[in-house]
Amino acid sequence: MTTSFLAALQALLDPAGILTDETALAGYCLDQRRRYRGQALAVARPRSCEEVAAVVRLCAEHGVPIVPQGGNTGNCGAATPDESGSALILSLERMNRILEVDADNNTITVETGVILADAQAAARAAGRLLAADWAAAASCQIGGALAVNAGGVNVLRYGNMREQTLGLEVVLASGEIWGGLRALRKDNTGYDLKQLFIGAEGTLGIITRAVLRLFPLPTAQALALVAFPDPDAALALLRDLQGRVGDRVTSFELIGQPCLELLAKHFPQLPQPFSPAPQWLALIELSDCGDSAELSDKLIEALAESEIEDAVLARNAAESEALWRLREEIAEAQRREGVSIKHDISLPVSRVPAFLAECGPKLQAEFPDAQIVAFGHLGDGNLHYNVFRADKSQAAYQAEAAINAIVYGCVTQLGGSISAEHGIGQLKVDALTQYRSKLELDLMRGIKQLLDPQNLMNPGKVLRF
Amino acid sequence: MTTSFLAALQALLDPAGILTDETALAGYCLDQRRRYRGQALAVARPRSCEEVAAVVRLCAEHGVPIVPQGGNTGNCGAATPDESGSALILSLERMNRILEVDADNNTITVETGVILADAQAAARAAGRLLAADWAAAASCQIGGALAVNAGGVNVLRYGNMREQTLGLEVVLASGEIWGGLRALRKDNTGYDLKQLFIGAEGTLGIITRAVLRLFPLPTAQALALVAFPDPDAALALLRDLQGRVGDRVTSFELIGQPCLELLAKHFPQLPQPFSPAPQWLALIELSDCGDSAELSDKLIEALAESEIEDAVLARNAAESEALWRLREEIAEAQRREGVSIKHDISLPVSRVPAFLAECGPKLQAEFPDAQIVAFGHLGDGNLHYNVFRADKSQAAYQAEAAINAIVYGCVTQLGGSISAEHGIGQLKVDALTQYRSKLELDLMRGIKQLLDPQNLMNPGKVLRF
Repeated sequence: MTTSFLAALQALLDPAGILTDETALAGYCLDQRRRYRGQALAVARPRSCEEVAAVVRLCAEHGVPIVPQGGNTGNCGAATPDESGSALILSLERMNRILEVDADNNTITVETGVILADAQAAARAAGRLLAADWAAAASCQIGGALAVNAGGVNVLRYGNMREQTLGLEVVLASGEIWGGLRALRKDNTGYDLKQLFIGAEGTLGIITRAVLRLFPLPTAQALALVAFPDPDAALALLRDLQGRVGDRVTSFELIGQPCLELLAKHFPQLPQPFSPAPQWLALIELSDCGDSAELSDKLIEALAESEIEDAVLARNAAESEALWRLREEIAEAQRREGVSIKHDISLPVSRVPAFLAECGPKLQAEFPDAQIVAFGHLGDGNLHYNVFRADKSQAAYQAEAAINAIVYGCVTQLGGSISAEHGIGQLKVDALTQYRSKLELDLMRGIKQLLDPQNLMNPGKVLRF
Repeated sequence: MTTSFLAALQALLDPAGILTDETALAGYCLDQRRRYRGQALAVARPRSCEEVAAVVRLCAEHGVPIVPQGGNTGNCGAATPDESGSALILSLERMNRILEVDADNNTITVETGVILADAQAAARAAGRLLAADWAAAASCQIGGALAVNAGGVNVLRYGNMREQTLGLEVVLASGEIWGGLRALRKDNTGYDLKQLFIGAEGTLGIITRAVLRLFPLPTAQALALVAFPDPDAALALLRDLQGRVGDRVTSFELIGQPCLELLAKHFPQLPQPFSPAPQWLALIELSDCGDSAELSDKLIEALAESEIEDAVLARNAAESEALWRLREEIAEAQRREGVSIKHDISLPVSRVPAFLAECGPKLQAEFPDAQIVAFGHLGDGNLHYNVFRADKSQAAYQAEAAINAIVYGCVTQLGGSISAEHGIGQLKVDALTQYRSKLELDLMRGIKQLLDPQNLMNPGKVLRF
């Protein structure tokens, strides 16, 4: 059966469109956190929506599961096949054309294999901003970003991928192509089908093209790294700043002291402005049209009248970049340190301080060696809340269930979410069944069965049957 | 059967919770455009989500269709029952409590029978902006606004209702209550169920509570009414302004000359600044934190360097209000004038001038007496494009199909939508089947059948079976 499937696949695609060699497959079968290692029949690398549709139809005929894959930078294993080796990985990497930048409509149209940084550059060349941005921008793809409804450092001002999406083209499980590639800011013609596919992690269809919003390109920036005694003080400054300058506050990134210790250890070449390291920092960026000096003045004014411990302002682009690197290398510093139990959670912004005050002591009561590395997007109520133990080997995963129970318990009690911007993938399938109601899970399963009755689209991800 | 249903309904609700008297029903059975007049068994006026659920369960048992109704200000007859008299109208008007304003989380939680203007006022009292705003704000309800994914005059800056919604509570067709009342800016835990109900016009469930985003309250405004020779010049100014001041451009409302003539006729007391009336006007509002004078300076600077014909700036709140009334009374002036064939369409912003240049001549070639009253939200590509004939009685509807074919043909060819912000209701059910693909309609029908297998939730609206 496998042989006839592969032969038929070969007839659909050009020679470079199929990889079957074990060495070539290895990278596609391992997730970037090196937590999930799967097996696959092959990797298909179609070049067009029509080729994707042909591959999907072939898989439907042969009952072959499909695992769509973008830049393979996800955090929850959504793009990694299981160990059975029965699935086909469908990589969008060759569908990387930027199709149109319409500056007058403030939109960009792309194939979904386009690297985020390339789309950002194309927008910038037209004097526009593609607001989606996060640490993996240089390697992640638009399709993956849509599949997990990715967030990042500009959500406070510009929203998640969902809010930035105007239209989609999607290959359905049947192999039919849904042409929803509209470039409209208002369109109320029945149910908004595109919303189903955004954040569905490839379980309902494969997004092949997208129209994304662009914004006026900010010409002014002001960036400060600010030290606080506690998260309440950071939240107070955020609210004060928003009152003064509104949505010019584009990033407000909270960084806990243990992050700074990891950075000092693994990135000693990165200068840290404060010594000793303060309990909490926030990296605050304002952006606007017009003049940077004016924006800096407003930031300095707000800082002068607030309850902060200390602050440094970036005086130029190089200093800006150095401060941003402190934020962006936290993920890599953690990776070098070893295994931690990671949580990507969100809360009402007003309840972030309560969460931090409650959850840490609860964890340390049960696990006295727990060290909490917390950072994230305070302005969106989104924390990356990671727990290291003394043993940082794979053995650390043994306590995962118990640690998750404490963290997710606190999150749920405060009205929060167990996945803010990384999705569910494989990692949180069980947690989802625990923290979402039966009614919700039944609705989701109903939608899945409606759109993918054979359960071939990224099976085992998001929902368990 | 009807008697036993009504008796059972009476047992569920308080005496004021049911209206059966014909006089009392009349207003609920007539849509605000006076185009649709239906009949109903009764009006149920529950006071809580639990009462709504009980009514829905009773209707499911008795096979009674439900027509949910908010402020009854919709434009497409979605809230009006058919003429059979078999349906129950479920009015949310007594569910009008504002449940919470969380200024630190920038959210407001309301029952969906709350009048939009009341929610705006509650937000303002907490120093926050509820951005949803349009002419019917003083009488429409939040639930209706969510049901049609309403737009309005601030979409350019703040988005439609969909973009402003963080969480919903919904009574499903089964009478079960889905508790999705989350107040989170990031939440990627499976399929985003709330998106199904927003814009579904009550055909998939009844939204009983909602959490909406709030924004920093702007303290500065600048408003100008600007005359242009053509829509291209208006679009050029919009782009120039966005480059200069970014998202401080909160409204950019285009007004065609015939609107001004209707205003002069039906609202002679409203002063019109330009004489003779120019071909095109735009009402442009900038808003921001900080100081109004600074904002006005920026607007004046942009106007001075642009290709406009003339402009007036509002010097104070009273002048602002007078200019806004010109925009907001267009709908009432049209109503007083008589019957027109209305279209609420959207296009890529860059294609609005092309649409206006193409569609008018095509209409007038076929209907030499056609007068086009066009106005709308240029910044979102949304036009209200209404066609009067010499005969402005109900007889004018005779040409509706032919006129729609021309207008929707031009819209479709330019990648636009036949319903931008008013939804489908009864008015556009047939048009939807014509201008959306079979695949899309099948997907929508599948969703409808999944969520409302008995087809009792606002049947006949949005989709025809």
